[in-house]
Amino acid sequence: MANHPQGTQRAVKWYPPAYDIRVETIPIPEIIEPDDALVKIKLAGLCGSDLHIYRGHEDVDAELICGHELVGEIVALGSSFYPGATGRPELYSTLQIGDKVVSPFTVSCGECHFCRVGFTCRCIHSALLGTPLLPGGQAQYARIPKAGGTLFSLTALARSNARVLDIADSSLLLLADILPTGVFVALQALQHPKLSPMLTGSAYPSSSFVPCDGLVLSGTGVMKPLETADRTLTIAIVGLGPVGVCAAVSLLHMMENIRTTKGLDCRIVAIDPNEARRKKMEAVYAKINSHDKQSCAFVVAAIDEAQDLAKLWTGGAGCNAVLEVVGNNSALDLAYSLVRPFGIISSVGVHQEPPIPFTGRDVYNKNVSLDFGRCPVRAMFPLALEILVKRQDVFGGIGDDASLIENTVSFDQAAQSYELFDKGKCGKILFDPWM
Amino acid sequence: MANHPQGTQRAVKWYPPAYDIRVETIPIPEIIEPDDALVKIKLAGLCGSDLHIYRGHEDVDAELICGHELVGEIVALGSSFYPGATGRPELYSTLQIGDKVVSPFTVSCGECHFCRVGFTCRCIHSALLGTPLLPGGQAQYARIPKAGGTLFSLTALARSNARVLDIADSSLLLLADILPTGVFVALQALQHPKLSPMLTGSAYPSSSFVPCDGLVLSGTGVMKPLETADRTLTIAIVGLGPVGVCAAVSLLHMMENIRTTKGLDCRIVAIDPNEARRKKMEAVYAKINSHDKQSCAFVVAAIDEAQDLAKLWTGGAGCNAVLEVVGNNSALDLAYSLVRPFGIISSVGVHQEPPIPFTGRDVYNKNVSLDFGRCPVRAMFPLALEILVKRQDVFGGIGDDASLIENTVSFDQAAQSYELFDKGKCGKILFDPWM
Repeated sequence: MANHPQGTQRAVKWYPPAYDIRVETIPIPEIIEPDDALVKIKLAGLCGSDLHIYRGHEDVDAELICGHELVGEIVALGSSFYPGATGRPELYSTLQIGDKVVSPFTVSCGECHFCRVGFTCRCIHSALLGTPLLPGGQAQYARIPKAGGTLFSLTALARSNARVLDIADSSLLLLADILPTGVFVALQALQHPKLSPMLTGSAYPSSSFVPCDGLVLSGTGVMKPLETADRTLTIAIVGLGPVGVCAAVSLLHMMENIRTTKGLDCRIVAIDPNEARRKKMEAVYAKINSHDKQSCAFVVAAIDEAQDLAKLWTGGAGCNAVLEVVGNNSALDLAYSLVRPFGIISSVGVHQEPPIPFTGRDVYNKNVSLDFGRCPVRAMFPLALEILVKRQDVFGGIGDDASLIENTVSFDQAAQSYELFDKGKCGKILFDPWM
Repeated sequence: MANHPQGTQRAVKWYPPAYDIRVETIPIPEIIEPDDALVKIKLAGLCGSDLHIYRGHEDVDAELICGHELVGEIVALGSSFYPGATGRPELYSTLQIGDKVVSPFTVSCGECHFCRVGFTCRCIHSALLGTPLLPGGQAQYARIPKAGGTLFSLTALARSNARVLDIADSSLLLLADILPTGVFVALQALQHPKLSPMLTGSAYPSSSFVPCDGLVLSGTGVMKPLETADRTLTIAIVGLGPVGVCAAVSLLHMMENIRTTKGLDCRIVAIDPNEARRKKMEAVYAKINSHDKQSCAFVVAAIDEAQDLAKLWTGGAGCNAVLEVVGNNSALDLAYSLVRPFGIISSVGVHQEPPIPFTGRDVYNKNVSLDFGRCPVRAMFPLALEILVKRQDVFGGIGDDASLIENTVSFDQAAQSYELFDKGKCGKILFDPWM
């Protein structure tokens, strides 16, 4: 721990009850546990879900260091990481001082059942960065607990994949939350068994769990391979903030992959009431489509226009899947109105106290499937990194019409940036703690 | 249509507002549409979901002929079925006068998109038997619309599978609703991608939609093949009425099939507060296990005991999946309390007007997946028939401790049977309209 930095640092803090952002000088954190890492932060993101705390919606009554998106460099490690340390040798041999790392927005140990099966955001030791329990990334340094399970080392990966070191820090920062979350919400819809008939061309149900020797029926009209007309997927994306745009790019990426082998047809409608967000989505799509002509129909629309279009496209049946990337009941109501019977609502919105707005009859009558919750970012890294590398046209830019990131600013502009972002007056902002 | 029976028949009718069952003599229905069939009913079932109308919970304000479970014989067919009829030749060539048939509880045309992909209960022409719009099966004759898509002909199937004609009518009747519904609720859970890590031994997420050339990471603890300890499935069944018992038998059947090839471990807890139902479930399981030693742990329990057991079995994590086979908010609350983060609630309960009892925070914080709705019985017939044939030890009996069917009675006992069934004082009853 010879290199452990000493002294003070600058950090962005939030004070209860709401809307109170201050930049303060505070002590640099110490290594406390043997599995901690201390990360010198190169860039920290301002994320839509930071606004839940900012607005006072999370019942937090203590001050905190903000932020849960960070990319940086390891400057100190706990004793578990040193050669000869007892316990966890394999997991903890991947990190070294000097490694460039990205942290997911939640800590995960890498060792419990939930981590092992890939549901890392529900790790039994899970903790969310940027809460009173775990100081966040909008600082010059951050202590990351369970670092062997949590941190993703680009340096370690670069030993076998040199190209990953070419990625700009501002792109890597998207791995902390929004890009994996976009990948997750799209994957959750496409992997659902209710989409399987369209993806595989075989009618529901697959009989893999109940092998039916000789009982396959002819002439019932339901057991024949599906015609192309039945294999068109119509998918809506509700909410075109930065995560919604990442969901759209991820979905397009996946559809191109599976279309190549399966001859599917797909139509996507991306929805937001906010015109600036729609324009951003249109610019992103134009850039993707100019580099790599997309086979999916893709339309960006306001709410009413989207509802009409979904009806027109599907003969009134509705969408096969709706990706809900907002996190309130208006978005869930819209998703329900758009989805067809036996459709899927894949939701990554951070929903709050209100009861979800469906009656038992609503959900029964549509045979709807609802998948809720937080992205297991740590487990999604390989898929998200693959998309990040392949889509540098979208994820590489800052400050142009098609970039997800609007600007990089210093902490001096933190309070103003929160205020503008809260009011929808700016896009995604990154903080350079050393600027 | 030479054989069309004339005159009157006896039928069980319900009158609003509630609890009013009368047996009346009414005209035998006529063939109306070219795709109608007239079925002479051999047996009709009394089903738990008949009680929704019986109790006046369905907002029905007109009298109706009850029942949506029937097995019988085709005695007349509309003109579409006759050789040389224009339109639908293949679909409508499967039925002939004299065929033994089972009808699913909803009509499905076999021709629309929803039918073709296998989501037959959401056919665009869907109609539920035993409603004011479509007279039910507790009669001597019933007119079945869209018969080519709806009726399942055992006679047609017997041309290639003679064994299906050995099945007793009382067993076949279980195909109309409760056995396919049990198969569906179990399959819906097992096919969900959140169970895939346990079933396949590969951690989430599968990358089939995002091929990652060379990005597979070593040493992260999440990309390695899963150990046996992570592949134990714990599944709860909430509600042990006849559908719940069918769900349990189906789940055991599926687990034996997949265990043979995959080496999984599985534990099932089957839950009901009603002691008589628990005893029935125990007797059914004892019979299965005596014929064919089961590899799954299987425990029947009251609610408190089940909650303790699920905690004990899973170290407090909760169940991977909960099958909800009741249809009220107490059952959904229990399901939520039992399910683990990234678990699945597969629900076939017929839910009513109340809002579903979860807040946005509940569903977000557990990453819960909810699959609701009606079984597409017509599409499930092959799987359900396969299980019916293989499990005649369970589905073949009447009136013993382990039978799903308690008794076959005449229409003279209809009012009394509804009353006893409503009060939980008898098991499943069949009506013989000719007794």
